[in-house]
Amino acid sequence: MPQEHIVKAYDDQLADLDRTIAEMGGLVEKLLSDATNSVVNYDVELAKQTIASDKRIDACEQEIVEGATKLLALRQPMAADLRKVIATIRLSNDLERMGDYAKNISKRVITISQSPILSSISRSVERMSKMVEDMIREVLDAYIQGDVAKAHQVIYSDEDVDRLHTSLFREILTYMMEDPRNITACTHFLFIAKNIERIGDHATNIAEQIHFIVEGDTFDNHHESKDKSATIVAEL
Amino acid sequence: MPQEHIVKAYDDQLADLDRTIAEMGGLVEKLLSDATNSVVNYDVELAKQTIASDKRIDACEQEIVEGATKLLALRQPMAADLRKVIATIRLSNDLERMGDYAKNISKRVITISQSPILSSISRSVERMSKMVEDMIREVLDAYIQGDVAKAHQVIYSDEDVDRLHTSLFREILTYMMEDPRNITACTHFLFIAKNIERIGDHATNIAEQIHFIVEGDTFDNHHESKDKSATIVAEL
Repeated sequence: MPQEHIVKAYDDQLADLDRTIAEMGGLVEKLLSDATNSVVNYDVELAKQTIASDKRIDACEQEIVEGATKLLALRQPMAADLRKVIATIRLSNDLERMGDYAKNISKRVITISQSPILSSISRSVERMSKMVEDMIREVLDAYIQGDVAKAHQVIYSDEDVDRLHTSLFREILTYMMEDPRNITACTHFLFIAKNIERIGDHATNIAEQIHFIVEGDTFDNHHESKDKSATIVAEL
Repeated sequence: MPQEHIVKAYDDQLADLDRTIAEMGGLVEKLLSDATNSVVNYDVELAKQTIASDKRIDACEQEIVEGATKLLALRQPMAADLRKVIATIRLSNDLERMGDYAKNISKRVITISQSPILSSISRSVERMSKMVEDMIREVLDAYIQGDVAKAHQVIYSDEDVDRLHTSLFREILTYMMEDPRNITACTHFLFIAKNIERIGDHATNIAEQIHFIVEGDTFDNHHESKDKSATIVAEL
């Protein structure tokens, strides 16, 4: 009986960690979605709200590190359980960074809100963000369900995000060349697009962690990154 | 006697982790320094070499996660020892990201090598990089020595890096406005400067981890970020 009690408590503690991961992931997805809406409509009020909501995400990371540390100290899990606890520490860090990137998008909306509206760029940003929001949802499902195939799917989706980012980078440079009045907005749009691309990278990191939890080895991603934005030269 | 033997082996394993962290930190510092030299001289050959050297940094992270997992499974450390092992996992992730950012600088050097040389910007990039290289050296010393005061010093140094980044961002925008032929190089310089600023942020994260290892609580950084680059508007 006491043995069963200990096992139950351990499962409860692990379930608490999972709940906090799921909460954190949900908050990150909402933060990215709100930040993107604030971009599309140059909505400064919404941008300010999203900046404030990042605080809870930071607190979740803290809770996960503390919970995982306590679980390691008291329960001394082995093998797959140990990998899972270590993975929660690492992926809470990914989620915290994703929140930071989304928050930074909102900061830039406040800066560019007086600039000319560049609706073609906004639309591409919105499309890219929707792809990354899907990745976040999928990777959280994969985590909760321990579904490696779904995690691999997220890794492959990131290639489409990278391709879209590369073409968006090129488009933004073209607007800059056309008219110096676009330079402020375009500069911040470069970073907004990069932030969304980085959030996708972190979703991919989480998917690789899921592979590690379930399979116990490192996911071997043979694909070269499809983000070629660092190699783009503006056409004069 | 057997008890002593176990303790010795534990210390050996912890020392192995520390050695790998120190190696990783040294490699990151050298990668950043080489990448910056390749920027200053538009040295494509050096840039290509630095890109290749990031592989060893990634392998170090792998070694640290595996070593820490093994140590947790076999030794079940408690209190400060447990915090230290968890911290090595988290800070190996910071070092890996720092290597990625430095590698990305080198990629951009290859892209801009045919652009006009902007020596005032290069000089500021070099100055900023030297400040961050110092932070990396200091934070590794603080880690090896368990020196919290030194770690706090690193956190405060990051404010100077943030201030320099903000003024450099403004300077780069000015060059863009002056002449559209500068737009390609300036765009990549914006990301080069941002990458160095991010490497500084990760050195700060490591410093905060050192505080956590030694003090057992979270470092309370009341200072607002001095990086205001997200708020800058180009003057027409």
